Amino acid sequence: MRPSKRAPDALRPVSLERAVARYAEGSCFVKFGNTHVLCTASLEEKPPPWLRGQGRGWVTAEYSMLPRATLERTRRESTSGKPSGRTQEIQRLIGRSLRTIVDLQALGERQITIDCDVIQADGGTRTAAITGAWVALHDCIAWMTARSMLKVNPIRDHVAAVSCGIYQGTPVLDLDYAEDSEADTDANFVMTGGGGIVEIQGTAEKTPFSQEELLSLLDLARGGCARLVDLQKTAVA
Amino acid sequence: MRPSKRAPDALRPVSLERAVARYAEGSCFVKFGNTHVLCTASLEEKPPPWLRGQGRGWVTAEYSMLPRATLERTRRESTSGKPSGRTQEIQRLIGRSLRTIVDLQALGERQITIDCDVIQADGGTRTAAITGAWVALHDCIAWMTARSMLKVNPIRDHVAAVSCGIYQGTPVLDLDYAEDSEADTDANFVMTGGGGIVEIQGTAEKTPFSQEELLSLLDLARGGCARLVDLQKTAVA
Amino acid sequence: MRPSKRAPDALRPVSLERAVARYAEGSCFVKFGNTHVLCTASLEEKPPPWLRGQGRGWVTAEYSMLPRATLERTRRESTSGKPSGRTQEIQRLIGRSLRTIVDLQALGERQITIDCDVIQADGGTRTAAITGAWVALHDCIAWMTARSMLKVNPIRDHVAAVSCGIYQGTPVLDLDYAEDSEADTDANFVMTGGGGIVEIQGTAEKTPFSQEELLSLLDLARGGCARLVDLQKTAVA
Amino acid sequence: MRPSKRAPDALRPVSLERAVARYAEGSCFVKFGNTHVLCTASLEEKPPPWLRGQGRGWVTAEYSMLPRATLERTRRESTSGKPSGRTQEIQRLIGRSLRTIVDLQALGERQITIDCDVIQADGGTRTAAITGAWVALHDCIAWMTARSMLKVNPIRDHVAAVSCGIYQGTPVLDLDYAEDSEADTDANFVMTGGGGIVEIQGTAEKTPFSQEELLSLLDLARGGCARLVDLQKTAVA
Amino acid sequence: MRPSKRAPDALRPVSLERAVARYAEGSCFVKFGNTHVLCTASLEEKPPPWLRGQGRGWVTAEYSMLPRATLERTRRESTSGKPSGRTQEIQRLIGRSLRTIVDLQALGERQITIDCDVIQADGGTRTAAITGAWVALHDCIAWMTARSMLKVNPIRDHVAAVSCGIYQGTPVLDLDYAEDSEADTDANFVMTGGGGIVEIQGTAEKTPFSQEELLSLLDLARGGCARLVDLQKTAVA
Amino acid sequence: MRPSKRAPDALRPVSLERAVARYAEGSCFVKFGNTHVLCTASLEEKPPPWLRGQGRGWVTAEYSMLPRATLERTRRESTSGKPSGRTQEIQRLIGRSLRTIVDLQALGERQITIDCDVIQADGGTRTAAITGAWVALHDCIAWMTARSMLKVNPIRDHVAAVSCGIYQGTPVLDLDYAEDSEADTDANFVMTGGGGIVEIQGTAEKTPFSQEELLSLLDLARGGCARLVDLQKTAVA
Repeated sequence: MRPSKRAPDALRPVSLERAVARYAEGSCFVKFGNTHVLCTASLEEKPPPWLRGQGRGWVTAEYSMLPRATLERTRRESTSGKPSGRTQEIQRLIGRSLRTIVDLQALGERQITIDCDVIQADGGTRTAAITGAWVALHDCIAWMTARSMLKVNPIRDHVAAVSCGIYQGTPVLDLDYAEDSEADTDANFVMTGGGGIVEIQGTAEKTPFSQEELLSLLDLARGGCARLVDLQKTAVA
Repeated sequence: MRPSKRAPDALRPVSLERAVARYAEGSCFVKFGNTHVLCTASLEEKPPPWLRGQGRGWVTAEYSMLPRATLERTRRESTSGKPSGRTQEIQRLIGRSLRTIVDLQALGERQITIDCDVIQADGGTRTAAITGAWVALHDCIAWMTARSMLKVNPIRDHVAAVSCGIYQGTPVLDLDYAEDSEADTDANFVMTGGGGIVEIQGTAEKTPFSQEELLSLLDLARGGCARLVDLQKTAVA
Repeated sequence: MRPSKRAPDALRPVSLERAVARYAEGSCFVKFGNTHVLCTASLEEKPPPWLRGQGRGWVTAEYSMLPRATLERTRRESTSGKPSGRTQEIQRLIGRSLRTIVDLQALGERQITIDCDVIQADGGTRTAAITGAWVALHDCIAWMTARSMLKVNPIRDHVAAVSCGIYQGTPVLDLDYAEDSEADTDANFVMTGGGGIVEIQGTAEKTPFSQEELLSLLDLARGGCARLVDLQKTAVA
Repeated sequence: MRPSKRAPDALRPVSLERAVARYAEGSCFVKFGNTHVLCTASLEEKPPPWLRGQGRGWVTAEYSMLPRATLERTRRESTSGKPSGRTQEIQRLIGRSLRTIVDLQALGERQITIDCDVIQADGGTRTAAITGAWVALHDCIAWMTARSMLKVNPIRDHVAAVSCGIYQGTPVLDLDYAEDSEADTDANFVMTGGGGIVEIQGTAEKTPFSQEELLSLLDLARGGCARLVDLQKTAVA
Repeated sequence: MRPSKRAPDALRPVSLERAVARYAEGSCFVKFGNTHVLCTASLEEKPPPWLRGQGRGWVTAEYSMLPRATLERTRRESTSGKPSGRTQEIQRLIGRSLRTIVDLQALGERQITIDCDVIQADGGTRTAAITGAWVALHDCIAWMTARSMLKVNPIRDHVAAVSCGIYQGTPVLDLDYAEDSEADTDANFVMTGGGGIVEIQGTAEKTPFSQEELLSLLDLARGGCARLVDLQKTAVA
Repeated sequence: MRPSKRAPDALRPVSLERAVARYAEGSCFVKFGNTHVLCTASLEEKPPPWLRGQGRGWVTAEYSMLPRATLERTRRESTSGKPSGRTQEIQRLIGRSLRTIVDLQALGERQITIDCDVIQADGGTRTAAITGAWVALHDCIAWMTARSMLKVNPIRDHVAAVSCGIYQGTPVLDLDYAEDSEADTDANFVMTGGGGIVEIQGTAEKTPFSQEELLSLLDLARGGCARLVDLQKTAVA
């Protein structure tokens, strides 16, 4: 029995609210249960310095948590002088995931920055962030299209993410904090609308896991990502 | 005529929503029009190191803006390595304002940190933050009282804040960004429920101002703060 | 009775010594009693990057204290990695105050940096710094005029500053450290030669203050600033 | 045909040289072809601060590259002020991988730090580092055992790592830099001597990959890690 | 002919003014011609952390230049985030030089910090600083003696410093900036009252120098330091 | 008797191994006994920014120690945020020493960076680094010459370095760590192939030293550097 009483293959209640930030070109407030992330897309009319003059654009992401998003208050990274290793790892993952489904040539010499700010954290913040970031990015592209800034749509597919883990011997989908802190194995999966795998990060917390366990987690993730992609489609319809 | 069409002595629509953060001991989502600030109060069961063993507690504040709270995206302070001068000035002001109305002896050897995170910024973020911070602090104290942690209520009064300025020759209350960026004089007032002045910060942007102008701004502020205190009273009733 | 035996409306002995720095374009060693600040003006023949090509110049200030300016040695800010919040607040105030009385258009595409280094500190360092900075700025402009670098004098007025406070119930002028650390209310006033108010920063240390108290401090400050402006006039005559 | 002419399932020539650092409790100079990493194990007779008094020890890792390990010189991280996101990601991975096979209780209240310094880099530095780190850790434990510092051997298994990728449509083992920079998919696998999976990190560089591709990479990795574990056994025999 | 018209073995006019800092336990304003350094000694009643419980004290130094001490304004080190390599080199030299003539056992478990702040710089700031620092240290020890804090005088000897160089082929003493920037060889000598050498730092700027040249510089330095020690004796008499 | 049993004027066994770094334009692995330093030369086809357009090049050096080069592990400078004062002092010395024997005009608008990474440290790392750096620089120049990038050889002479000290009353050459930590006086000498002195850094650790002692150290250093230059000649022959 999961602490959340969910079935092993059940997502938490997910919502994707659009246009929540008055000034951003695109935005989405994504909830995976008690995990809440505000994603905003900011368009800049020039690429990063190292990409100048190559006719291509860039999509990048930044990730942060409000100090009291968590059970215990965490120290602000601006006062510790730099983003932590964990923060950098997550924002690199979000950026990489989005770039896999964007045609950077079609975007032109521009940069879109997706800010993912965790307002409340109950496990799975990075997977919620990726899922919401896609919606914010979609709306930023729509904003550009409405202004005739693009010839073709640079978004080639959906991308969504979910975590899975082995909790008390059972593979389960979309871990919340109570499950995550007890799980033997923790894996994050990023997948496209077409079912392709963009990223797998699987970690054995205590004991190594087997190929069979990996495949059962992959099955759960495939189902979860498919449902998240459906929710993205409904949201932007 | 103000860009916002408001009367010179009119506040923007103000709301103070309580209990918005699942994990914080107290919280308030405050809106002054399009300026939105999430205030959370975090209780720590020990005072800051320099206050140990003196039988008193401490109340402090941190302030930050999400990168896309503003019209143009601003750089995250965690990547620039330190809070800016402006950020430090504001969080010192918030902390000082709250401490004026708190009996630190009655609080005991504890620290309460009020995090003020600006979700959306349309001028007056520091005054909205102070006004909402009082509610978050109030609810944190209520949380402690419910757990019999306090003998007397350490909150001695309300504290609220509002900005005023001289816009096209007319003293006006509660400037939004469009007014603030054009005003000749910009002043922030922090006042107690009893009408006492806690802090005045008045700055001539272009031309110096006179004693008469200062007094007319003070009159507007007095009225504005009184209404904000009423709204606080309604919110916590 | 003030610890310094001064009358409530008496400044400390003030001196403004010019041309004290061999290499600076303008300089002033200002003393407010035992508070000593060295102000130097440094001319740079280009504006800050964000102002390029706009036909205007800039005046900015930096502030620092020698480690043993104070009763207890304070840590050097170069070893703590960054200027403190207090330092940044003060140097922003000095720069803002000077810019109010300078015609930046008339200055042309140049930058003048006023360095205010506190050699000895006995309260009121920021107000002494502003008062001395005006003299250093004046002499820098004179240096430029002597070299025919300016068509019109960009200095439009004097600017001087003084602190006031309520000490044991009595409003007093120009607080030294002994008074400042005991005062109920502490306010800094920056005023022009013409009597206009450039900046007010009033803070209740323990109990809020009333409008009447604010006005009595303002009266003291008006008298003090007028005398400081006279001393500036004598110094540069 | 791979640029290195290797068969798809062929490792580069691997060597594990022990006792290369005069002062370290354990050390290994590991070569995967032209990728050379110096791994040293340093024993400290106390755990990290956050683990004090819990009767357990800790194993952690740090990773760095010499500036000219690479084709182009890279900037030293000590001059850029902090380890990069990539460095932090790698050193967290190395530490996590080692801890999975160490009984931290049996280690007692001590910390072992494995420094992995890349002397020359031709792809796969993190997998070489993990493979060599195990040998350095083994020898550190042997050093402790020789001094009767341990009751039971805290090392429960081997751990080794290898990268795989899809190069021009073919799954290949142990990518060198020339292959890595062209590969469609890049995955790192960390496995135990018993064949358990400790960590999978798979990333689609350009196009998403399928479950079948993942499984073929996993097969290659299983074979590669088994051979690396054999080489570790030979080395420490 | 030297730009300063001095004879090759002539010091610049030197003055050592004591008791210039109201709050410091000892202080000296030292002038070597147009090079002016304020040296203050600050006593702390505990040694640095790494020396606790060993019955000995410590003497250390910090060095800084005001931004406009120089012909061109230099950037403040607090804004660049850390002391430069040059600053650290100099403050390590000053501390080392003083410690050579102090009996740290006799000082007891205390620390004296000598702050050397360059008010004006015309070459030779580090040698002026060492020479003045001795006087500040002497007066700090006198302050302690007057309060019966010491059983024996921990100062065992004088220490003074001077620079020498080969200017247009001639060995000269006490280089000012005009000479220093043109000199072929630049050497700093730190010597005790007894004539012992505490530190030599000799650098060939363009062409290597010979043993004979080194000896002629050493002769000049010996004479210069002897005169500086005489001036110290007169100053503290 | 020296701990190392060497005669007072005996160097440790010295070796200079060339071409040890696959990617660098020049490299040398230098050993002075148990002190091992990897020196690589990296060519960049542009000078540092402050030298642009002047027709000259630059040679600079960076120095670092692996954390476990030493008996006790030392903290990585990338995690402490900046190179220490000692590191900066050493890398400035290496750069200065090399520039003395390079014709920067003949080098053209390029920069060569010599990285000196201490793999193992047993005293004298800076002198070993300088001696090995010359070989790496030589091979970088040879690499350029082979590609017809230079009209004349910019290397005008050899440069080598050695430490000397007074150990238990006897002047000795090339101190190892055991000697260095006990020596009364410690001096580093940098000399050219022609016997000229490039740099002397002599420090009295406990008691000042005399001119006679300095001269005896200089004699030892002259002999040591001559032998090191011979070894350089053999190495590059």
